[in-house]
Amino acid sequence: MQSKFKRILFGGDYNPNQWPKEVWKQDMAYFKDAHINSATINVFSWAKIQPSENEYNFTELDEIVDMLSNENYDIVMATSTAALPAWMVKKYPDTMSTDYEGRQHKFGARHNFCPNSLVYQKYAKALVTELAKRYSDNKNISVWHINNEYGGYCYCDNCQKQFRVWLKDKYKTLDAVNDAWNTEFWGHTFYDWDEIVVPNELSEEAWGGMTSFAGISTDYRRFYSDSMLNCYKLERDAVKAIIPDALVTTNLMGTFKGLDYFKWAKEMDIVSWDNYPAYDTPWSMVAMTHDLMRGLKDEPFMLMEQTPSQQNWQHYNSLKRPGQMRAQSYQTIAHGADTIQFFQLRRSKGGCEKFHGAVIAHVGTNDTRVFRETALLGRELESFGTRTLGTRNKSDVGIIFDWDNYWALEYTSGPTRDLKYVDQIHHYYEYFYNKNISVDMIPVDGDFSKYKVIAAPVLYMVKEGMKERLEQFVKNGGTLITTFMSGIVDQSDNVHLGGYPGPLREMAGVWVEEIDALAPEQSNTVSFSDGKEYKCNLLCDLMHPEGAEVLATYESDFYAGMPAVTKNIYGKGHVYYVATQLEAAGLARVLDEATNEVSVSGVIAEETGLEITCRESENTRFYFVMNFTDEKQTLPASLAGMVDLITGEAAKEGDVMNKWDVKILQEAL
Amino acid sequence: MQSKFKRILFGGDYNPNQWPKEVWKQDMAYFKDAHINSATINVFSWAKIQPSENEYNFTELDEIVDMLSNENYDIVMATSTAALPAWMVKKYPDTMSTDYEGRQHKFGARHNFCPNSLVYQKYAKALVTELAKRYSDNKNISVWHINNEYGGYCYCDNCQKQFRVWLKDKYKTLDAVNDAWNTEFWGHTFYDWDEIVVPNELSEEAWGGMTSFAGISTDYRRFYSDSMLNCYKLERDAVKAIIPDALVTTNLMGTFKGLDYFKWAKEMDIVSWDNYPAYDTPWSMVAMTHDLMRGLKDEPFMLMEQTPSQQNWQHYNSLKRPGQMRAQSYQTIAHGADTIQFFQLRRSKGGCEKFHGAVIAHVGTNDTRVFRETALLGRELESFGTRTLGTRNKSDVGIIFDWDNYWALEYTSGPTRDLKYVDQIHHYYEYFYNKNISVDMIPVDGDFSKYKVIAAPVLYMVKEGMKERLEQFVKNGGTLITTFMSGIVDQSDNVHLGGYPGPLREMAGVWVEEIDALAPEQSNTVSFSDGKEYKCNLLCDLMHPEGAEVLATYESDFYAGMPAVTKNIYGKGHVYYVATQLEAAGLARVLDEATNEVSVSGVIAEETGLEITCRESENTRFYFVMNFTDEKQTLPASLAGMVDLITGEAAKEGDVMNKWDVKILQEAL
Amino acid sequence: MQSKFKRILFGGDYNPNQWPKEVWKQDMAYFKDAHINSATINVFSWAKIQPSENEYNFTELDEIVDMLSNENYDIVMATSTAALPAWMVKKYPDTMSTDYEGRQHKFGARHNFCPNSLVYQKYAKALVTELAKRYSDNKNISVWHINNEYGGYCYCDNCQKQFRVWLKDKYKTLDAVNDAWNTEFWGHTFYDWDEIVVPNELSEEAWGGMTSFAGISTDYRRFYSDSMLNCYKLERDAVKAIIPDALVTTNLMGTFKGLDYFKWAKEMDIVSWDNYPAYDTPWSMVAMTHDLMRGLKDEPFMLMEQTPSQQNWQHYNSLKRPGQMRAQSYQTIAHGADTIQFFQLRRSKGGCEKFHGAVIAHVGTNDTRVFRETALLGRELESFGTRTLGTRNKSDVGIIFDWDNYWALEYTSGPTRDLKYVDQIHHYYEYFYNKNISVDMIPVDGDFSKYKVIAAPVLYMVKEGMKERLEQFVKNGGTLITTFMSGIVDQSDNVHLGGYPGPLREMAGVWVEEIDALAPEQSNTVSFSDGKEYKCNLLCDLMHPEGAEVLATYESDFYAGMPAVTKNIYGKGHVYYVATQLEAAGLARVLDEATNEVSVSGVIAEETGLEITCRESENTRFYFVMNFTDEKQTLPASLAGMVDLITGEAAKEGDVMNKWDVKILQEAL
Repeated sequence: MQSKFKRILFGGDYNPNQWPKEVWKQDMAYFKDAHINSATINVFSWAKIQPSENEYNFTELDEIVDMLSNENYDIVMATSTAALPAWMVKKYPDTMSTDYEGRQHKFGARHNFCPNSLVYQKYAKALVTELAKRYSDNKNISVWHINNEYGGYCYCDNCQKQFRVWLKDKYKTLDAVNDAWNTEFWGHTFYDWDEIVVPNELSEEAWGGMTSFAGISTDYRRFYSDSMLNCYKLERDAVKAIIPDALVTTNLMGTFKGLDYFKWAKEMDIVSWDNYPAYDTPWSMVAMTHDLMRGLKDEPFMLMEQTPSQQNWQHYNSLKRPGQMRAQSYQTIAHGADTIQFFQLRRSKGGCEKFHGAVIAHVGTNDTRVFRETALLGRELESFGTRTLGTRNKSDVGIIFDWDNYWALEYTSGPTRDLKYVDQIHHYYEYFYNKNISVDMIPVDGDFSKYKVIAAPVLYMVKEGMKERLEQFVKNGGTLITTFMSGIVDQSDNVHLGGYPGPLREMAGVWVEEIDALAPEQSNTVSFSDGKEYKCNLLCDLMHPEGAEVLATYESDFYAGMPAVTKNIYGKGHVYYVATQLEAAGLARVLDEATNEVSVSGVIAEETGLEITCRESENTRFYFVMNFTDEKQTLPASLAGMVDLITGEAAKEGDVMNKWDVKILQEAL
Repeated sequence: MQSKFKRILFGGDYNPNQWPKEVWKQDMAYFKDAHINSATINVFSWAKIQPSENEYNFTELDEIVDMLSNENYDIVMATSTAALPAWMVKKYPDTMSTDYEGRQHKFGARHNFCPNSLVYQKYAKALVTELAKRYSDNKNISVWHINNEYGGYCYCDNCQKQFRVWLKDKYKTLDAVNDAWNTEFWGHTFYDWDEIVVPNELSEEAWGGMTSFAGISTDYRRFYSDSMLNCYKLERDAVKAIIPDALVTTNLMGTFKGLDYFKWAKEMDIVSWDNYPAYDTPWSMVAMTHDLMRGLKDEPFMLMEQTPSQQNWQHYNSLKRPGQMRAQSYQTIAHGADTIQFFQLRRSKGGCEKFHGAVIAHVGTNDTRVFRETALLGRELESFGTRTLGTRNKSDVGIIFDWDNYWALEYTSGPTRDLKYVDQIHHYYEYFYNKNISVDMIPVDGDFSKYKVIAAPVLYMVKEGMKERLEQFVKNGGTLITTFMSGIVDQSDNVHLGGYPGPLREMAGVWVEEIDALAPEQSNTVSFSDGKEYKCNLLCDLMHPEGAEVLATYESDFYAGMPAVTKNIYGKGHVYYVATQLEAAGLARVLDEATNEVSVSGVIAEETGLEITCRESENTRFYFVMNFTDEKQTLPASLAGMVDLITGEAAKEGDVMNKWDVKILQEAL
Repeated sequence: MQSKFKRILFGGDYNPNQWPKEVWKQDMAYFKDAHINSATINVFSWAKIQPSENEYNFTELDEIVDMLSNENYDIVMATSTAALPAWMVKKYPDTMSTDYEGRQHKFGARHNFCPNSLVYQKYAKALVTELAKRYSDNKNISVWHINNEYGGYCYCDNCQKQFRVWLKDKYKTLDAVNDAWNTEFWGHTFYDWDEIVVPNELSEEAWGGMTSFAGISTDYRRFYSDSMLNCYKLERDAVKAIIPDALVTTNLMGTFKGLDYFKWAKEMDIVSWDNYPAYDTPWSMVAMTHDLMRGLKDEPFMLMEQTPSQQNWQHYNSLKRPGQMRAQSYQTIAHGADTIQFFQLRRSKGGCEKFHGAVIAHVGTNDTRVFRETALLGRELESFGTRTLGTRNKSDVGIIFDWDNYWALEYTSGPTRDLKYVDQIHHYYEYFYNKNISVDMIPVDGDFSKYKVIAAPVLYMVKEGMKERLEQFVKNGGTLITTFMSGIVDQSDNVHLGGYPGPLREMAGVWVEEIDALAPEQSNTVSFSDGKEYKCNLLCDLMHPEGAEVLATYESDFYAGMPAVTKNIYGKGHVYYVATQLEAAGLARVLDEATNEVSVSGVIAEETGLEITCRESENTRFYFVMNFTDEKQTLPASLAGMVDLITGEAAKEGDVMNKWDVKILQEAL
């Protein structure tokens, strides 16, 4: 596949507007040393470039664009609409959002506009149109970056009115709304559209964020994701009206809950995202999030932001260790990135992000560890980066990730409050990561036929058509792995009656009669046929095989002997059902069997503590070999002899890799 | 005593309105199999039966009533007023409550009406009048159930105005209010009734729920309990205006803090309540709550709700183990219930309670463990239930429970924040429970003369007349047991000057000079005359005997040697004063002495891990023998030979009872 | 120096208005027994003495003043303005504050007026003028006490308008505001003064109290401190307009964050404060706070409030142990107090402070431990108190304490959330305390030349002129000790560019390249040249010596071997830089070296567990020797032979001092 870029974009957020001109020149020189070739500009400049309703001032922005163009940068041009100008809030208070507690906010912070404010929409569109017109001829602008990290919520009257319109569009009749939300429960029947109010702490979610009706709450999330998406599309369309072939994106935030990114990705020319792991985030979680971002369009993506060293907004903002940023960057590329961009190029002197790491620190020189590590990476990428551009990750395994499920599962009242969607997904991802088995994160409406194995943990909400599609996949020989809390409800959060796991019951060959919730101090044990035992906890389905083979049973409590893991033959395929939260070793055993029987394997045969992730062009496979463990690791023999893209030397058997070491080994296909 | 019922009502909340008609028929068949004979209907149907201000629609309710009547059910007819219809909130926003933070809520959730809204009152009364008229002739309606689980708080302007009226009625003059609340402290003197505002987070309770003036805060709780009670009475009177002999109740919630249930019970024809222990609630706490509910009217009560298996709204909603629901039901009857009713009969498919257990699960069949256990219990109750109906519990021991004390004690600022009223009461109850000594939970204005022993832990607030009544009780030979934090304040939360424990000082024969608060990591030790030592913590009174015998003294700190437990002879009786929070074994030692000397004993002589609770008719005593421990227990010899009401067989010496096993042994009187 | 008083004021808050007249007489008798000679009155009497807008009523206050004057009390006359009368709030709702969440409060609690309410200001001034006129001739009124414990925050429209005025006064132009707050970051540029809104949860501090712009947030704290101070000055000036030589104060609260007490002290004739340590507050923290209060004016102060035994508002209000209150009182005097006053003299019978200890308890007699201990102290103070009056503490060591730093440091986003200003300061103070080295707590604009050693921990904000003053101090031979997170920002919270520690870089001879944040479970080790090792945590600077000598280095992580403690010769003096949070023993080692080399030593040569603190007159030094440890301590030999002011006897070598024992030993100078 062709990359969207001619080179790996290497650079990041750059705000020369915060600095005097003499600094600009110095920056250009330093950035050249660091092999920086790209800058993201104009991210928070609305107040600067539009000082009042009828006035634009692009003088400074012109200078910035000219300077970067002269240096032949790939410019990522942001649209500046993520922070409202103070004058706008003063004149049009309802451009600001009203929070979950019903309080209209005043000027301050960012990412706080109301997406359903027509005033906001009007001025955002006008601004973007002006920007597009002004810079339409500039060939250095490689990407248009809409807004910034869309997020937040609003519950104002405008949102409420628009929500009713959205509902009318979706349901057509109030009867359909009442049915969907099961309003007969607690007598919440609506007789007039205007009786519907936004669900927040003052209405349906009055009890600490717990909702009385998951139907309205889930719909509000869908509506709000759409509202934000409308803002994105408004700007995107304004750009494309002037520059039809513009490459348009906005920076996403991984597993951020608020927005249905699969739906968003359809409107984006390329996915970009911001990667900010904490000091204790597992590397498998980082990898999973990359795969999710890649999976949104099933294409290479942009890494729009990462810090070259520390964050400022986490509780404990540890420094990245020497080599860590480089290793993290290569992991990013390994999982599908075609750019490496930082927030930010020069550290601000004031404001809440002044302790956020940057390529140029407050000392203002290039004589720092962080600069040197950045420059080293820049040099490396410049030397070979085009080789990996546009290459693809290939996977036999898909894991379903679905924002509707994310929302609905975490809205459920019962059986336990400890169930977190992303953690459950990661629990499964981690197995494949540890085995170096490539995984695609896929939507519920993805192309299942590409995969040998699909894992669908906690597939709580099974929407229309899903049953048929999963059955088809299995019938054709696929292996489906699903778990407790799957198949419970339909798209409106109404239970699939007739016995859990509802639409999955037939293909799984089990009937779940009851679901037991275990308190944190409680656990059970699961025993396999060979006597091996593993701990389990959180939730335990009490289930009956209906054709499925029992792989493991509970060891204690009144449901001792009942199945805890089953496997069902369905058509040409298999369905595994894992009825409880197994400890990792227990889960690995199940997944070993599931993957082995369909010959899914890691990218190399050997077991290793190294992360090895592959990208492929038509004729070359690139093995990204990285050590994220605290121990030295030896290069697996099967990789010996391949040439390292970075050093140009062949890897040798017995090569020792220290923590953060990276090799990119090439194999001809 | 005559029961209010002809049979044990066995059934529960039933919402056929949420289901299509074909399900209704299936329900009737299943319920018959389960020996269900009762259904609570129309609990949340206001929006259905009154779709607008001037329109009622009883079509569906008629069908439900007819169906159940044809099956000869005991119908519990709810009035539907606990959840406002959406149309009402839209038209009359002040029917919704204004919360503790001063925020008027919008439509959503339930139990959120403002009790002082005249609009709410008008429509509630009109609806109930319509219902009563329509069904006045139906002989199957056994109980009228007003509203549902009254609770919540409102702080709106209507409540504020009504609060001033309530105060004027109570105090007559502002001077009396100022005196009662000691407003001279911090200069809060009122010169005009309209200066008084509701106490919440925006006024007297501005510091995280801590009040500056316990007087106004306690009065607001009294006022609010009365406001809710007025709503109850409004509906009750509307029913009785049409059906004078209707049996009217509302479902209470055990030790729920918000309402003075002793005051409420006076207005109820029968007490009913909802029992939802968590997975780790001690069975002694459940027993205590039953006794409290029985004690409200000193009569058998209805168990209006329990779940056949799991809840949905707790953190960890564990399944009831096989036999547990049955054992819990028998415990309920043992402590005075004449009904066993579930929430609910069929599990809802949507809404926040969809994971709440029900007799019929989402699978929709009767082939489930929960159904079978329900049916087993139903069969048993049908076979002998009338035998226990209306029989009484008899007790030599009373424990005082008082909502005014509950409120006032937990409003105190100092000496410790860890003092919880219900836990303190339970600490004493637990002793009697472990000894199988029957206990009545009694109000401060109860008939003390019935008891040999009265325990009054943390009797912080001693209201007018209480001193004389307690003295009379002891003078006549009664034993009073009281503790630290007793006798401190009068009904307005003003200190009884002259030395703690104030009105109890003379009869207790002690003067408490100081009260030390211990942090959680601190403890002291109490030593008895024989050298036995026990830990104590939380609070330590530093007290001086004034005639009382010292039973135990502190072992450490500067008050080592000072009395920690005393006993005073007063008239023909005794007063025990326990000056600190003793560990259970230490408290048991004190209570052993107190009970032994007045020959109070358990229902059998033997010590046992079994719970044994008795109900008596004129000629029979029923021993409910239940094993709530994790170990097997052997039937005490003294019960051998008695016939088990359930099996019809005589119990044998050495009979082993497993966890959850139950026997109901009969003894002729 | 001359004391402001002729005797040690011994007494406290007295509210006879809460009691009937017969109690007043009893009080006078008891107080005489306790050697009480002072009473603070009229603290919360606004509603009483001004029952409506146009009406004053001093009848009762006259009686109280007369009674106390007749007994020759030193009267501390409060102005009553700290709690609004209910009538005023009803008529003028905006006299009440609007809270951090933007909610206007209603009547209730105290310390909740809006300082920028002109109505409040008008009535406060009028009341104080009336009071001053009425009692101007009374010679027993020794102190005028304005308001009470100024504190709280308001965010109302009046405050917002006044904030803009304050900003205009400070910055003159909007450009200067934009520069100071670096509004270019996130495009918050202001084009109109009216666009600026108060920073709270609804604006710049929308994320749980974290601010987006520390500039505006810090300025709001400055503005608010000034707003409160204006109220103070308004009242003070009203008093002085009538009574020019009145001694005017208000009671401060130690390290209370809200107000810049150094600025306040300039407007106060004498500092007074309220000392309420919790059961687990280290005595070194209490001592530090006394030193801070003394340091505000560098003069003896009033101890306006302490409890004779327990508080009511802490979580666990433990009793003061026998002797503890006395020892705490002497510690107070040792650190510079010329008064010992209690809250309060008689315990209130109602209101939230009814469990707050008092000289006369609820029992109402003098036959209590607390009374006896109070009386003993009163007798002692009466016997010698004038000897210590007005004597001074002398210190070679100053520790900088600065409210701007307090605010700005705790507003920073990054590198760690665990950094607490007062704890960091105390960590250094504790060393000197343990060594009995006298310390002055000094402001950033204090007279540095008086000191041999100045410690400036976490001197995050280095304001204009500070660099030059510190350099001058060191050049002249002083020793400066500073730490990580120093020299980072200027007065507007903008970074001193050019490398940390900014203005301190040259004199410290180090450059801090990076700052690592350690999570609570992490630590590093610091090793000195002799191989001794100490733990460190929280933050670790990665620094490079630029002329400084390396005293210790890190032992682990990638910065092992980098300096952790350095010492730089600068002019005639030294600068120590401590780059991490050292465990106490490690810090002691550094400070031992720093103090030894400039011959700073404790008040006696010996090491001891006793606290020994000195006050000096021109010809006598008083050693306050106190045992705050749990072990017995032996009197150091160097103190033997000196006469104890309390007993009149000479101390002997080997004298054993138990916990809470006190000696005041005199040495002629």
